[in-house]
Amino acid sequence: MLKEYIDLSYKPRRSDLICMFKIKPNRISMKKAAAHVAAESSVGTWTEVGPMNDRIKKMRARVFDIDGNYVKIAYPEVLFEKDNMAQVMSSIAGNIFGMKVVNELRLEDIDFPDDFMRIYKGPEFGIRGIRSHMKIKERPFVGAIIKPKIGLKTKQHATLAYETWMGGIDIIKDDENLSNQRFNPFKDRVVETYAVKDKASSETGEVKEYMPNITAETETMLERMDFIRSQGGKYAMVDVVTTGFSTIQTIRKNSKGIILHAHRAMHGAITRGNQGISMLALAKIYRLIGVDQLHIGTIVGKMEGDKTEVVNIWENIEKKIVKKDKKEHILAENWGNIKPVFAVCSGGLHPSHIPALVKSFGKDIIIQAGGGVHGHPDGSRAGAKAMRQSVDAVMKNISLKRYSKKYNELKRALDHWK
Amino acid sequence: MLKEYIDLSYKPRRSDLICMFKIKPNRISMKKAAAHVAAESSVGTWTEVGPMNDRIKKMRARVFDIDGNYVKIAYPEVLFEKDNMAQVMSSIAGNIFGMKVVNELRLEDIDFPDDFMRIYKGPEFGIRGIRSHMKIKERPFVGAIIKPKIGLKTKQHATLAYETWMGGIDIIKDDENLSNQRFNPFKDRVVETYAVKDKASSETGEVKEYMPNITAETETMLERMDFIRSQGGKYAMVDVVTTGFSTIQTIRKNSKGIILHAHRAMHGAITRGNQGISMLALAKIYRLIGVDQLHIGTIVGKMEGDKTEVVNIWENIEKKIVKKDKKEHILAENWGNIKPVFAVCSGGLHPSHIPALVKSFGKDIIIQAGGGVHGHPDGSRAGAKAMRQSVDAVMKNISLKRYSKKYNELKRALDHWK
Repeated sequence: MLKEYIDLSYKPRRSDLICMFKIKPNRISMKKAAAHVAAESSVGTWTEVGPMNDRIKKMRARVFDIDGNYVKIAYPEVLFEKDNMAQVMSSIAGNIFGMKVVNELRLEDIDFPDDFMRIYKGPEFGIRGIRSHMKIKERPFVGAIIKPKIGLKTKQHATLAYETWMGGIDIIKDDENLSNQRFNPFKDRVVETYAVKDKASSETGEVKEYMPNITAETETMLERMDFIRSQGGKYAMVDVVTTGFSTIQTIRKNSKGIILHAHRAMHGAITRGNQGISMLALAKIYRLIGVDQLHIGTIVGKMEGDKTEVVNIWENIEKKIVKKDKKEHILAENWGNIKPVFAVCSGGLHPSHIPALVKSFGKDIIIQAGGGVHGHPDGSRAGAKAMRQSVDAVMKNISLKRYSKKYNELKRALDHWK
Repeated sequence: MLKEYIDLSYKPRRSDLICMFKIKPNRISMKKAAAHVAAESSVGTWTEVGPMNDRIKKMRARVFDIDGNYVKIAYPEVLFEKDNMAQVMSSIAGNIFGMKVVNELRLEDIDFPDDFMRIYKGPEFGIRGIRSHMKIKERPFVGAIIKPKIGLKTKQHATLAYETWMGGIDIIKDDENLSNQRFNPFKDRVVETYAVKDKASSETGEVKEYMPNITAETETMLERMDFIRSQGGKYAMVDVVTTGFSTIQTIRKNSKGIILHAHRAMHGAITRGNQGISMLALAKIYRLIGVDQLHIGTIVGKMEGDKTEVVNIWENIEKKIVKKDKKEHILAENWGNIKPVFAVCSGGLHPSHIPALVKSFGKDIIIQAGGGVHGHPDGSRAGAKAMRQSVDAVMKNISLKRYSKKYNELKRALDHWK
């Protein structure tokens, strides 16, 4: 019976997986809609079936809290296969999104069972590991995306990377749609860009890194990661949404020694609006699987995502303990031994944005710019300098306006993007 | 410049990839919003960048048609890596969904370049290959999902499968969240269920098939597919949305001799509403990658999806030539040598629904029921009989009401689900 899926006196166990959904029912009560969600995402279906028995009934999901349109549901851990995120999502985020009994449904947050923190790998490096590799103790990292995002030939790509590193950028990445194109093949690009990386590194005395985009069919991705390793590389970039949960798990399973940078292209098809899955829930999943760096939004810049939401995501991927927040509809989480993920702010950023980003997220962020570097009126090296100068100003607690009196590249950037 | 992305006199080439988007701009004109979509999904970004050159400008996407909120954009093929669907999606369905300049954005349809029909594998079997294997010449297939969807022990699962086959069901599948749980481990389930499959086959004289759900991390999926092969199995089921595009390509690359059944759990998080990607576009992608069977919706039943939409999906996965339809916002497609995918109707179906399904889709469909079989008042075997009787009635062009006078299982089903 549908009402068996409702138990408002139920106290969730540490072994339960808890979901918070936002539901807009379709001409039925919230209670009934919530029960349908719990049934379809655990052991039930639209009608009673003969083979149901008491043992299986105990495995059902339970709606234990209803607060306006927000509903909390607890799932017994026995429903989930170990270390199989696609299976978890097929359960708690599967058919329910297509049910007629709801008009809109959004998976807002997931509180994973304590066991998941032991079963899933989490990041290999995390913030500390990456800082140690990059030899950057305290300040935010400054990253750059090569632009135009696609089209440059291999030599041009490498030359531009060199210019950008020389201006003061720490890590350079491919863009989400650059993989292995005729005019810029993956292997050639890695070889050529590593060559100038080493040059920039020895000329600046700083660790410089390059994050080649390995996005492809899974076996090809593993080959590309192996190629990176064979060339002494340390980073691989992955489009985590378009490749998929199963691929990310496979990559993480085989990523030993490689820092994984997660680009979230296509997330907005799932995370935006009142139907789908929040970026917060996705970000927690990617932390659990074990990417080391993740794009979370920018507050400022060209991408949507309001401040509260982005700050909540940041907190959930960088902290060990997250408290529940009834007002903001955030579940609690204890990340146990799962390492923190380095949050990446990227999308329409330029030097002016940096103070606001550090104010919101502190210093443990990677600030990336593409247009904000290569769109500088005096070229990419000047653009890189301006980004780094802005970070330096923030670290010295000096306003950009004042700092720009001494640093012309920063001044030119501030004047250019008003 | 943004306006360079608009060229309403442009005539797309056969080598272009064409997207149809539905756009709700955010306080700018439709033209400007469309240009932003074309720029961000090809070679542009939010600001002009120095390294742009004429060669790269030629690689830009072009908005060539604007019709109310519907916009058509052509992408030169050079932007896409061969046989890399994640890369294609990171381009045409990537960052654009998160842009502030649009309030809502939906990728409605994709017309793939002619070359894609040679580069991508498409289904190995397709409708003909599957019919030939199953030795069913003309009628729709009758499928059943084991229910409860999760919880049965291996022996119970196998016994229920046997009962269901004996009632007249052709193919039996696991549900989307059953993979390799403690109470029903994958390998044991495959072995036990195959044993009764052979029994049912020899007792009924019909080909019977079982579709085990291999959904997991990619390498584990390949192992499970190998296990199916080692046991003489013919079918594997995959949750195509939760595993991801890269995994599906990897599975298809290694699937020789195995018919791939695609369950679409989680699609509603992407396909429903005005933000995201239509099921039509996803279905075309899965055909191109090469699944053999795909859930497309039901028109009737527990899942949303209006009739026009589901019929358009059916047409695009089963036909060779699809004509454009301005009114329904459907692009043309020539599938070349890519085989048709067997359409699967599944979700809240029972015997009463079958005449309407055959009327809409013809006989080349797989009609699946879970609750509609195991929820029959006289048990699963009777439920299976009623489903098959309903198909027989339709094939003989006799109304269910009349046919049920002779066939009691059908009568009981009609009475039970009014």
